[in-house]
Amino acid sequence: MTEVTFTINNLWILIATMMVFIMHLGFATLEAGLVQQKNTVNILFKNVIILCIGLLTYYVSGFNLMYPGAEYAGGIIGFSGFGLNLPDGTAGLSEYADGKYAYYTDFIFQAMFAATCASIVSGAVAERIKLMPFLVFVFLFVSICYPITGMWKWGGGWLNELGFVDFAGSALVHSVGGWGALAAIILLGARSGKYTEKGVRPIPGHNMPLATIGVFLLWFGWFGFNGGSVLSADPGAVALVFVTTCLGAASGALTTFMVSYWRFKSLDHSMVLNGILGGLVGITAGADSFTPGSAIIVGAIAGAIIPFSVVLFDKLKLDDPVGATSVHLVCGIWGTLAVGIFGSGKFFTQLIGVVIIGAFTFTFAFVVLYIIKKAVGLRVTEDMERRGLDITEHEMGAYQNIDRGNFAMAVAK
Amino acid sequence: MTEVTFTINNLWILIATMMVFIMHLGFATLEAGLVQQKNTVNILFKNVIILCIGLLTYYVSGFNLMYPGAEYAGGIIGFSGFGLNLPDGTAGLSEYADGKYAYYTDFIFQAMFAATCASIVSGAVAERIKLMPFLVFVFLFVSICYPITGMWKWGGGWLNELGFVDFAGSALVHSVGGWGALAAIILLGARSGKYTEKGVRPIPGHNMPLATIGVFLLWFGWFGFNGGSVLSADPGAVALVFVTTCLGAASGALTTFMVSYWRFKSLDHSMVLNGILGGLVGITAGADSFTPGSAIIVGAIAGAIIPFSVVLFDKLKLDDPVGATSVHLVCGIWGTLAVGIFGSGKFFTQLIGVVIIGAFTFTFAFVVLYIIKKAVGLRVTEDMERRGLDITEHEMGAYQNIDRGNFAMAVAK
Amino acid sequence: MTEVTFTINNLWILIATMMVFIMHLGFATLEAGLVQQKNTVNILFKNVIILCIGLLTYYVSGFNLMYPGAEYAGGIIGFSGFGLNLPDGTAGLSEYADGKYAYYTDFIFQAMFAATCASIVSGAVAERIKLMPFLVFVFLFVSICYPITGMWKWGGGWLNELGFVDFAGSALVHSVGGWGALAAIILLGARSGKYTEKGVRPIPGHNMPLATIGVFLLWFGWFGFNGGSVLSADPGAVALVFVTTCLGAASGALTTFMVSYWRFKSLDHSMVLNGILGGLVGITAGADSFTPGSAIIVGAIAGAIIPFSVVLFDKLKLDDPVGATSVHLVCGIWGTLAVGIFGSGKFFTQLIGVVIIGAFTFTFAFVVLYIIKKAVGLRVTEDMERRGLDITEHEMGAYQNIDRGNFAMAVAK
Repeated sequence: MTEVTFTINNLWILIATMMVFIMHLGFATLEAGLVQQKNTVNILFKNVIILCIGLLTYYVSGFNLMYPGAEYAGGIIGFSGFGLNLPDGTAGLSEYADGKYAYYTDFIFQAMFAATCASIVSGAVAERIKLMPFLVFVFLFVSICYPITGMWKWGGGWLNELGFVDFAGSALVHSVGGWGALAAIILLGARSGKYTEKGVRPIPGHNMPLATIGVFLLWFGWFGFNGGSVLSADPGAVALVFVTTCLGAASGALTTFMVSYWRFKSLDHSMVLNGILGGLVGITAGADSFTPGSAIIVGAIAGAIIPFSVVLFDKLKLDDPVGATSVHLVCGIWGTLAVGIFGSGKFFTQLIGVVIIGAFTFTFAFVVLYIIKKAVGLRVTEDMERRGLDITEHEMGAYQNIDRGNFAMAVAK
Repeated sequence: MTEVTFTINNLWILIATMMVFIMHLGFATLEAGLVQQKNTVNILFKNVIILCIGLLTYYVSGFNLMYPGAEYAGGIIGFSGFGLNLPDGTAGLSEYADGKYAYYTDFIFQAMFAATCASIVSGAVAERIKLMPFLVFVFLFVSICYPITGMWKWGGGWLNELGFVDFAGSALVHSVGGWGALAAIILLGARSGKYTEKGVRPIPGHNMPLATIGVFLLWFGWFGFNGGSVLSADPGAVALVFVTTCLGAASGALTTFMVSYWRFKSLDHSMVLNGILGGLVGITAGADSFTPGSAIIVGAIAGAIIPFSVVLFDKLKLDDPVGATSVHLVCGIWGTLAVGIFGSGKFFTQLIGVVIIGAFTFTFAFVVLYIIKKAVGLRVTEDMERRGLDITEHEMGAYQNIDRGNFAMAVAK
Repeated sequence: MTEVTFTINNLWILIATMMVFIMHLGFATLEAGLVQQKNTVNILFKNVIILCIGLLTYYVSGFNLMYPGAEYAGGIIGFSGFGLNLPDGTAGLSEYADGKYAYYTDFIFQAMFAATCASIVSGAVAERIKLMPFLVFVFLFVSICYPITGMWKWGGGWLNELGFVDFAGSALVHSVGGWGALAAIILLGARSGKYTEKGVRPIPGHNMPLATIGVFLLWFGWFGFNGGSVLSADPGAVALVFVTTCLGAASGALTTFMVSYWRFKSLDHSMVLNGILGGLVGITAGADSFTPGSAIIVGAIAGAIIPFSVVLFDKLKLDDPVGATSVHLVCGIWGTLAVGIFGSGKFFTQLIGVVIIGAFTFTFAFVVLYIIKKAVGLRVTEDMERRGLDITEHEMGAYQNIDRGNFAMAVAK
């Protein structure tokens, strides 16, 4: 490994870091677009704060819990101290990560991943969760839960020893976020008026351009999420990951489109947006090992799952305003299992990983949220929900002048 | 060519791929911002599906039609089989493209270009074309028409032999999209109420921030569109391309601004946005060969053309809601010819390229669209057009809660 | 320095250039989101034109005023001629900038910085400044004022000789923009109705999603703003800058959040957005020399300053619709001084730099704006201000159909 190769690898991981960063804007705009107008500021606020808590938490302890280093590796849990501890006192350049990239690079790339988990939850619990209790949950989820299961595979733990494969996090990131979301929406309950005696009442998102921006930015960021997970600038590997990622996303969108149209006679734009995300989540576990042809199949199945999954969660009266459980949990599981079919071939190992990660994460999230619920409550009052969280929590509207000043002026003319 | 240089070149083309990808969000937001609110979901939906169809189509056949390889090169048409065929079974690293970048890298970079053509058309036909017939056209346009003319130059075909120069696609991408748009708007006819007995009725776009986001993202992506077309990370060449691209865009905006102001007494924001795009399209054919000074002149002329061109198309009653024909067709032609003046010096060769590419593309698009029109119709009903395609095709509005729930609540207080 | 290292360094600076470019969209969307709806097109228009004027001006003379070269260095002012003058006639590759990157790369990276200064001003003067006089000011500010103080440090001038440290521009870019903004809002006066006998009337921004997009894009671009200021792809240095930049931003947001909540009982989203920006501005001067721990402290202090500063400016009746003076001027000063505490240790030298740069810039901006004010006036008429600049300057609304056609249709149903 020469100094030059080190520099190139390091540069690519840093660029990938920027890309994963912009996924947080993707989540923020997607979730904002898919909620009702009256809860827009609230969801934006949460996404901003989640990212900031995530980064700082991961600095304080998360990184060292997820990557405890050789001494602790191979096990269930380990911790190598608070803050950033340069392994050799020389900016961690030459000795770190097989000389592939700098210590600080590793930290910041992984830190951007950590915060995405909580963003997944924030969409599912939108429009009815209390801000402060949710931030407490985010803090615990990102600082403890996510790094532990992450360590099992990426930190060299027992799942890694077992031969479990999860390239960029269909299970470790997306299903983990999805399990957290599932626990939360079970404990929270549905939004008022969502499930009526007459059936499911659709509560459409308030801003489709915003949601579309979100999905494009998520895809954009996924180039770094998956491409950076190669952990080097290896030309063949990164190029393949770009191809599988894009083909998976594209085929996901098209099967969602086709299934929605033929099965439900619908050209629902937000469904197709979730089809793209389903394809992306599905491809993530095996983006480096699928062939382009397999990628199309994996994405297509993910996309076909989406409309059925969304309908199923509604049948179960599990109210998820943005479809996060369908996208991240269901397609995350599918993608992880798909590696057992199209990639490593170890289907049973993949299944074990999915189940144990799910059991741990769901239990952690459920217990934490249950305690919070009993202690201070999770849900806003009915009156707050009706009036919207923007006014009641933040005392501001998302589109101040559209509602008031100018509109009146415009119609008066 | 060392392994390290290969890695750097490959990395840059992949990064450029991400940038061209985000241009699709640029097109989506620009077009959404420039149409009426009632057709917003429809245009977003189309842009999402176009990208996905484009990528998959290019995977199946487009790439091999555009780059048929040495055996078929030099001619009019060639095809090297379906899917991705690694030339040497080793991920196409060392033997491919003079060892400059990986086979998969080449594919995904070119695939991102292919879909842009159809996005250009989608803006021009907005607010009145039927969704499904349009998607059929997109499929044929991207899978057959674009790769054939592309092969003439970039695949080593007859235009390349002739000395025709089109660095990053003023002709091969932008004018091709523009010719498709022209054929389509001739066959479709103008939007109802656009051309009245009293003259042209302006139908302003519904969301200027969205349109502005679109143009900035397109400029942002153009760094990859033009910069990646260097096909290596050669420092001098990429740096020059960045400079000419930015200066062309900037001078395009300023001349549009000045011409609009002095000639039409207008500070029309959407016109200036199109001035930027005109400058970018104009610079694209010669971004690697113009001096910075020439780039400013080429961009300035493109920007000066825009307001006149927009007025001219309206005089011809060719209704183009977003100005795509002015930006991509007219400035694409200008940019291609400009290479003959400021670059290669072979003006006549450039003119031949413009004319033959135009004749082929316009004919292809016209015939395909004519057949579709006769077979199933191209245009939505008058009632659908009046009510808007969001409600009539997608059963959803772009801004659900702004129109209903919250607004009523806000004024009631 | 090998050719390969040159290529990597050059590539990174070009990528950083793209990132700084997208900050202009960040400024445009942030400012548009924080003004009233009736002035949205106007602020978007200004941001577009500012960028274009900035790039062209910097090409014509700014670059050569800021980097006059060895012969003029060390002094107060120097100029090496108009346009781009390749130092050695070979694209400036090998001999330029210690062989670290190409001449054109240097130009375009610096040109992107130059235009940001004026964008900072545009937010503060929003909703009441006349377009054309403002553009004249921008032209003079970017072409003369910014390059001169920039040269004092980055061009090798007297502040550099003195040991003054400003890594990426807390003082040279942000405080310079902030001083310009301060001079302008003093001369312009507050928006009508902002300061009443009953106290300060809040004029909330009209579009929080747009403002949020702006801040995320600014953070995104800051990876290039700070990361590119390393002026090479040095792995340890760029990685550290990424870490300090992100931790500074995150801790800025959290302290603004906490201070706002505990001191003002407010969960004001736009305040937290400015907290992020305050953290970013604060970290910029020492992003390469702070430890991660110091970065958190510097960002936290910046974030804690923001709510108090915003209140203070309002007490002084200095009306700044977007909080640009708090973010860029106050936090820019803080960040520059912070280097004297946590970085270089030369607090007094930092103070000298802050004061002299401020004195020069404020005086320049004040005099130029005063002359413009006396000559043609700076401020729009009361009637224009009341009706909004979109209609009165641009004859168009930002959200045409939301206000009119469709809304009426939607409620009629």
